[in-house]
This record gives sequence, structure tokens and C-alpha cells, in this order.
Amino acid sequence: MSQYRVLIDANDEKGLVYKVSTIFFEMNLNILSNSEFVDKENNKFFMRSVVDGDIDKAALMTALKEALPKNSGIKVIEPKKKNIIILATKELHALGDILIRHESGELEANILAVISNYDNLESLVEKFNVPYVTVSHENLERPEHETKIMETIDSFEDVDYIVLAKYMRILTPRFVEAYENKIINIHHSFLPAFIGANPYKQAYDRGVKIIGATAHFVNNNLDEGPIIAQEVKHVDHAYGWKDMQRSGRDVEKIVLSRALKLALEDRIFVYANKTVIF
Amino acid sequence: MSQYRVLIDANDEKGLVYKVSTIFFEMNLNILSNSEFVDKENNKFFMRSVVDGDIDKAALMTALKEALPKNSGIKVIEPKKKNIIILATKELHALGDILIRHESGELEANILAVISNYDNLESLVEKFNVPYVTVSHENLERPEHETKIMETIDSFEDVDYIVLAKYMRILTPRFVEAYENKIINIHHSFLPAFIGANPYKQAYDRGVKIIGATAHFVNNNLDEGPIIAQEVKHVDHAYGWKDMQRSGRDVEKIVLSRALKLALEDRIFVYANKTVIF
Amino acid sequence: MSQYRVLIDANDEKGLVYKVSTIFFEMNLNILSNSEFVDKENNKFFMRSVVDGDIDKAALMTALKEALPKNSGIKVIEPKKKNIIILATKELHALGDILIRHESGELEANILAVISNYDNLESLVEKFNVPYVTVSHENLERPEHETKIMETIDSFEDVDYIVLAKYMRILTPRFVEAYENKIINIHHSFLPAFIGANPYKQAYDRGVKIIGATAHFVNNNLDEGPIIAQEVKHVDHAYGWKDMQRSGRDVEKIVLSRALKLALEDRIFVYANKTVIF
Amino acid sequence: MSQYRVLIDANDEKGLVYKVSTIFFEMNLNILSNSEFVDKENNKFFMRSVVDGDIDKAALMTALKEALPKNSGIKVIEPKKKNIIILATKELHALGDILIRHESGELEANILAVISNYDNLESLVEKFNVPYVTVSHENLERPEHETKIMETIDSFEDVDYIVLAKYMRILTPRFVEAYENKIINIHHSFLPAFIGANPYKQAYDRGVKIIGATAHFVNNNLDEGPIIAQEVKHVDHAYGWKDMQRSGRDVEKIVLSRALKLALEDRIFVYANKTVIF
Repeated sequence: MSQYRVLIDANDEKGLVYKVSTIFFEMNLNILSNSEFVDKENNKFFMRSVVDGDIDKAALMTALKEALPKNSGIKVIEPKKKNIIILATKELHALGDILIRHESGELEANILAVISNYDNLESLVEKFNVPYVTVSHENLERPEHETKIMETIDSFEDVDYIVLAKYMRILTPRFVEAYENKIINIHHSFLPAFIGANPYKQAYDRGVKIIGATAHFVNNNLDEGPIIAQEVKHVDHAYGWKDMQRSGRDVEKIVLSRALKLALEDRIFVYANKTVIF
Repeated sequence: MSQYRVLIDANDEKGLVYKVSTIFFEMNLNILSNSEFVDKENNKFFMRSVVDGDIDKAALMTALKEALPKNSGIKVIEPKKKNIIILATKELHALGDILIRHESGELEANILAVISNYDNLESLVEKFNVPYVTVSHENLERPEHETKIMETIDSFEDVDYIVLAKYMRILTPRFVEAYENKIINIHHSFLPAFIGANPYKQAYDRGVKIIGATAHFVNNNLDEGPIIAQEVKHVDHAYGWKDMQRSGRDVEKIVLSRALKLALEDRIFVYANKTVIF
Repeated sequence: MSQYRVLIDANDEKGLVYKVSTIFFEMNLNILSNSEFVDKENNKFFMRSVVDGDIDKAALMTALKEALPKNSGIKVIEPKKKNIIILATKELHALGDILIRHESGELEANILAVISNYDNLESLVEKFNVPYVTVSHENLERPEHETKIMETIDSFEDVDYIVLAKYMRILTPRFVEAYENKIINIHHSFLPAFIGANPYKQAYDRGVKIIGATAHFVNNNLDEGPIIAQEVKHVDHAYGWKDMQRSGRDVEKIVLSRALKLALEDRIFVYANKTVIF
Repeated sequence: MSQYRVLIDANDEKGLVYKVSTIFFEMNLNILSNSEFVDKENNKFFMRSVVDGDIDKAALMTALKEALPKNSGIKVIEPKKKNIIILATKELHALGDILIRHESGELEANILAVISNYDNLESLVEKFNVPYVTVSHENLERPEHETKIMETIDSFEDVDYIVLAKYMRILTPRFVEAYENKIINIHHSFLPAFIGANPYKQAYDRGVKIIGATAHFVNNNLDEGPIIAQEVKHVDHAYGWKDMQRSGRDVEKIVLSRALKLALEDRIFVYANKTVIF
């Protein structure tokens, strides 16, 4: 007896829930939880079910493929720890939050490595028995440095997600396209406000009364990928931009960890540069 | 072609989604939205579907009754304006918010009447073409006054909900039992903190840093019914209890209107003194 | 014995609190509340005191002027109802919220008039005994229409604030400059995200997980004035843009009323396209 | 040239700001920031100033004592790292958050030790070069165990704060009185709701729609001390109590760290079982 996550996205048509639930019923599977959503504007159907029972995964896939419209996305996933690589630069808070959650057993993840362009976090990371790889960008053109980062990533097998825990280097399209829907970034603003460099300074200059952070997939242009999670925090005139930065770190780390958890639990569909999250 | 809301609560067993979706499919109904929840602790299944198509309501009820476990709750509801009566005392903000929403056509409701133990809100309410009935409690024992309120309510037909928009009189069990799951109250605290009289004074005395409001059904003891919605607001030491009260009114009115909207859209199941809300 | 609000902004230098509090002390005034802020980056000092006692307003102004740096902003304000004019278009919620607050005596304001380019809100507004002026924009060029609006505004005396309660027409620089720091607008997004038309549609298209509203002074370009207050609300993939719009209205009206209250209580300093709020 | 924090609480009377600011002015000190609050109900005045200049601390204390009412509380504090001891039991999240902040240099604190009744967190804590002392409660009566904890605490010098980072043992009055206004606890509910054991289970049973956490000083009865900070999080019917617990941990750790930061920066006055926080 085991538990599976079934994720379906399909062009909407009458009877999809009927078809899927019939298959579950006939295969004697019990539905533990079930979520559906229809995007009427785009005529798209999304469904995530957690089922348990004596599953024949191949037979289930075959049955679903036969029943559902052509070109449907169908995944049958056995819950297990996913493999992640974390990219960082110099800041500790977001990385540290993930390390602590990992240590406490809260994350469904193996951290294969932390890669950084600096070495200042090395001693801490290694205390958590996580490999640390410094790939300095000094004296390297951006493409060269990125190639070295990619080679480091690709030296590990079965990488499910790459988490940018305040990795402060711009990624080129080559990098982004190589890991589509696999790179999770935390941007330190309430996107799409304050795209680009130093968003807290931008927020301060604009005189906002709320700051925020946004976790998103990096699929295309910087800061323009599908948003996974956002959170905010009230500020007032007494916050200088460094106060905003300090205070915003709490929001950043919570949002990044929340987004990572959603990804590890296979709760996210990416579609039309947006996410559907169950 | 019309749209229906189908609400089901049943003891959980394998195949419920399959059975219900099969009925929808065979009756040629299209599922517009679908929500399910299983309370595993209590083995209870909840489902709310919005379907459209050429519905034979009686046939649908019969089919669902046959398919589902005995003693299941099954409702097939055609969306239409529900009838509400509002009870108020002297404060305008919560009542006023409902009147404005009603005026703007935002509420799926007819306001049959506003009943109050004072007449100070009469001229305003009547400007909205809503009948206003003053039932003074002066020189009356509580049971007598309540009887008069109940008689006033019962003089209207088909009352779906009674909304207590800061009605500041305690209700007896007789009243409450007469309108089970029909009375929606706004309590001016984050329940279960500060049950009873003058919760803002209690909150001030306790030195809390957050105040709140709770909308709930009134089914039993004061302030102990099933919670529908809650919201909060940060405060600090500079708030005296009257500042908390003033500031809390914004939370109260928003939460009450939100709860009323959920009720009017048939989104609430009441179970085990809690709510399941889709 | 009466109460006064003293507002000071000055170039910062040592001893400003000492100088002001000495004047209060020597004039035998009691400080009821006191707030100060120094913007170190710009070397600016802000102070708001509420004092009571037997005040000679002219003498107090003279003493403060003598003691403070040249070019300081100094205001001694006796709390009383301010005069406001509300501009609306067709939507009721933000206007209605202000009318209800006005009716309940919560606002320190006289509403001189509601001006709209449509007449659909007239019957409601007149129920509150507030004059309603329709200034249709039909068959008029923008400057002509705006001139008529300005003439209507200027036909009232001593207008303290012009509140744009979802007034959906773009204002020209001529209008904006005529009422500097007097026009309070509610923009239906978390500025600076989604400047311009239909921000909920923009937010939906971007796939944000939080929507918001921003109250600000209109001093220059559309949606770019000093921010007074912001608030947000979580949404998810199930919100179409009209759901965001409906749901966002609650945020809009609360934020606009909050900003208006701050203005009526003389709590806002405008400086460097930002606000300092005590 | 150095910076000092001046904290004053006094019975309110006319001229206090004048007197204090005169002293600062005459001693040629620059006010970097200044906050005041008068609790009118209790006629109490609170003030926190940050000043810099060439300070003679003894002279400043003397001048303030002479100028202010008898029995005023007066502190002149030179900002420096405070010494804290953390008590934990088995849970890592709140402790881990403090350790990471300490590691990143964000906390104005030296962590003298972590004391726990279990040893399961030892290896982690030692990775951060922080001493870990296990004081098992097994086979010990509560007073005996507590005595051992107190002896451990008292073996360190100059302990400023004792932080209960999910320390799950009840403290006796003897312990609490020994460290008045020095023990900071995180309670995993929105106090005063759900005092006592297993608040998430209580919250689940009550069917709340919001959960929270409260950081407070432990001065008297369990969960009844002066509240420093509170934060909340929305939940819905789909949250079992373990989901609430998991999800609530993020709130707990953020609130505890925020409260600790306020204490380390000398921003908290305790008065009438409440806090005034600047």
C-alpha cells in the first residue's frame, strides 16, 4: 500500500472529473485529497489528487492517458525526497532558514550542495554536512562563470530544483532555459514593483508603506517568471532603506521556504507564466 | 439552461467523488467548479459543486440520494437572492456597510427589514427603502422583549438569515434554537479571546498587540458558535480602548460582510461546531 | 482652554526639541502627544505636537518663528471640521464608505458636495443630505470638462481636501497644480505596481498572489504622488480579474477612508514626494 | 563621541519633555531619535531617546534625577551586545532562527549557552560554537530540576535575558521572580486565547480561521505576562491541528526573534502588566 500524487492538466471538457474518479474507483484507490480548477478564460483544467491503495503506476498512467484529451499533462508521483541545489552569494538568512528546516526534517529534500560565488558561508554550511562549492566570478566573463556554475550543477545527478537563496548574479537565457520550471528565486520586492537592482532602495525612494518579497520560477526575463508566493510587511517613514532591507529579510526567507515546500510537495502547476497552486 | 449549487455532506467512504461525478456526467451537466474536503478525524466528506445544464432538480436529488450513504446531507440550490433581516442596536458602521453593498447590487439578498431596540438609525435605513422596526426593550423583561423581536421576524416570510450587525442584546436559548444556523453575528474580538462584554476594554487591559473581529453562527452559548470568518489589525501601546474600538470597527464590518457573502453564496457547511467553507 | 495641533518641519539642527518644548513650557501649555522624526539623509526635522492650555495662537506662532530655522514650516491648527469635496464616477463603494462614516459622526469633515461625471449616484448621495453635482463629460474635450469641474469646486469656499473616490478620469497638470497636496486619490493597486488603466486586469495577467490599494496625494503624474496608506489582500489562482476587482473594493474603501482620516487629523507631512505620518 | 540610549518613565507632569531636552541641549548632546508616550489613564510618561555626543554618563544621570519627579525610572545605556541564555526542549525552529541571526551578526547579543532538558539539539548548537548544557528532568521533582537549571544559568555572569525558545516546562514562581522582566517566552497562540497546553489542538477544536503566536515576558502566571509582540496567520478547515502546528512554527520563530530584537535594543518598557514599545 502506498500513496501517490496524481497531477493532471488538460484542455477542459465535460466529464474530466468523472473520468479520472472512475479510474481511481475501478483501480480501487482511495482519494485522500482532491483539488480541481478550471481556467475558463483559457479552457484549461487542472487536478491534483492524493490517492492511496495498491497502485500499479504504469497501468494508472495508461488508463489516464487513454481517458484524457490528447496532449494532457499527466504525472503520477510517488512522494519522496527531491534533490535540490542551492545557489547563494553572501547573505545567510534565506539559506540559513532552509538549512535549519532541512536539519529539523521538515523539508522533503536532500540538499546536494550549496554553490556560491563567495566562500564566506562555507564553514557554516559544512557544519550541516552539506557540500559547499565556491565558484568565484572574479576575473571571469559572465558566460564563463555561468558555464562553471552549470558544470557544477550538472556534476550532480537528478537535480529536481535549483533554489536561488539570494543569489545576486543575473542569469542568462542559456542558464534559464536549461532548467525550465526548476529554478526558484526569491526577489526582495512585491513584484512586479521594483524589478531589478536594489529594490529596497527603490521602495524607499518611492515612499511605499508596505514592502514585500516574491518567490517565483525563473523562466525568462529577470523577475518576470511565474509567481509562486508573495508576502508583505508594513513599514513607515521611519524606515530607511537599510531598515527595510533588514526587516524584509524575514519576509524573504519565509516566502522562499514556503515556495520551496509547495514545489517539493508537487503542488504547483505552471501555465501561461502563472501558477496554479493546490 | 440554468446553474445549480450542489452541496453534499456524508460519512466518508471510497468512491463518493466517482458516484457524484458519474451522476453529473450521465445527466449531462457541466461542472463549473468543484470543491471537496474529507475530515479524516471524523470520517466526514464535504463537497460543493456548481453545475450548469438542463437540470431536472427532482431527478438529480433522487439520483444523489440513491447513490450516497444514508443520512447524507444533500442540497440542490438554484442561486437566487436570499431574504435577510438585520438586527442592530445603535451603531451604524456594520449595518451601513451592508446597506451600501445592497444598494450597489453586490449582495445576493433582499433586506426584508432592519429591527432595532432603538430608533436612532431609522431615518437613514428608510432612505434605503428598507423597512425599519423599532422594538424598544424599555420596561420589558428580556423574554418579553425577545418574544416581540421574534414575532417581528416571524411576520416576514421565508427568512433565510438573521444578521446581527452589532446587536448588543444577549439572546436566550429559545431564540437561538428557533433559528439554528441562520443567525450570523459579528463579535468584536478575535474569538475565543475576550468573550462577553466590552472586548476592546478587555483587550486593552490585557495589553494585546493585535485586535480582531469574528463572524460566527449563533447556535448555543454567546460567542461560542461556529466561526465563519476572522480578521485582525495590529495596534500598539498608544491605542486606548476607545481607539481600539474605533479602529476595530473597520475590521468588524468587513468580516461581517464577508461572512454574509459566504452564506448567501451557499459556501458554508456547519459541522461539529465548526465551518467548512468552499 | 483649547487644544491645538502644532506641526513643524525644519532643517535639522541641534536643539529643536529643546526650543519647541521650551516655548510650550513657558507658555504654560501641556503636551498631550508629541511625535518627532529626523530624516537624516535629507537633514529634515518633523514634529507634531498636540497641546492644550490657554493659547495665544499669534504669540505661539511668533515664538516658534523666532526660535526655529528660517524657512521652517510652522502650523498651529485648531481642530475643527474640514471641508471636503468628493469626486466620483460610477462606483459606489468608496464614496458610500465615506458617506456612512460621515453620517455616523466619525469624520472630522463637512462634505460640501459630491461631483460626478455621471448621475447614477445622485439619489443615494442626496439621501445623506449631501449636494450632488453632475458634470457630464459627454461632448466635451477634456480641458473643457475639467474647467467645469474646477469651476464647480471653486464655487465652494474653503475647500480643504478633494477626495477622488474612484474618479476614473485622468487629471491634467493644470488641475493638479491648482490643488497641490489637497487631492487624495485611491488607486486600485499596490503602487508602483500596475500604474495606469485596469490594474486588476494587469495584476491578473501577471499572476500575482496579493492585490492591494494605495491612497496618495495627486501632485504630478498619475499614480506617482506621495503615498499616504497602502493595504493588501491575498488572492490565488481561482480569482479571475473581476473577482480581484470585487474583492479589492474592500481594500480600496478602507485605505481611502484611512488616508482621509489622517489628513483630517493633520497627521501628514508631504516631503520629497513622500509622506511622514504621525 | 559615543551613542547612548536614555530611557525614562515617570509620573506625568507638565514640562517633562522640556526638562529632558533642556538637559540634552545643555550637555551638548544631539538627539538622534526620540519617542514619547503618555498613558493618560495612569498618568505615566515614557520617553526613549537616542543621543550622541561627548557624554558624561554620571553627570547625565545626576541631571536627569534632579530634574525628574521622584521615583522616576531613569536608564542611560551604552549600546553593546547583551548576554542571553536560551532554554529549549526538543524543537529546533525557534532556537535555529536565533542561531542563524546570531551567526549572521544581526543580533546585538552574545549567546552564553543553550540549556535544554534533552540532548537532541546538542550537535547542532555546537556547530554554532555555542555551549550546550543538558539538564535532564528525568527522575527529578520539578523543584529539583528547576534548581539545577537556575544553578546553570547563575554559573554565567551578567545574564541580561533568558529566552524560552519553545521550552516546554512550566516555571514556578520562584524561578520567575528570580528573573523579573528578563524571561522572554514564545507562546504558540494568539494570547489570551488558548492559554495552557497544546494551543494548536485547542485552536483546531474551536475551529478558528486564524492562528497566532505571542512573545511575552514571564513575570507571573503562565502565559499571562506582558505581551511584547504578536503575529497571526490565516488557516482554513483543511488544516488539521498538526498542520496548524507546522504552519504556526514560522509565526513563532519570527515573533520570538522580533521580541528579542526589541529587548536587545532597549525599546521595551514594562508597566501594569503591559509593554510600551518604541
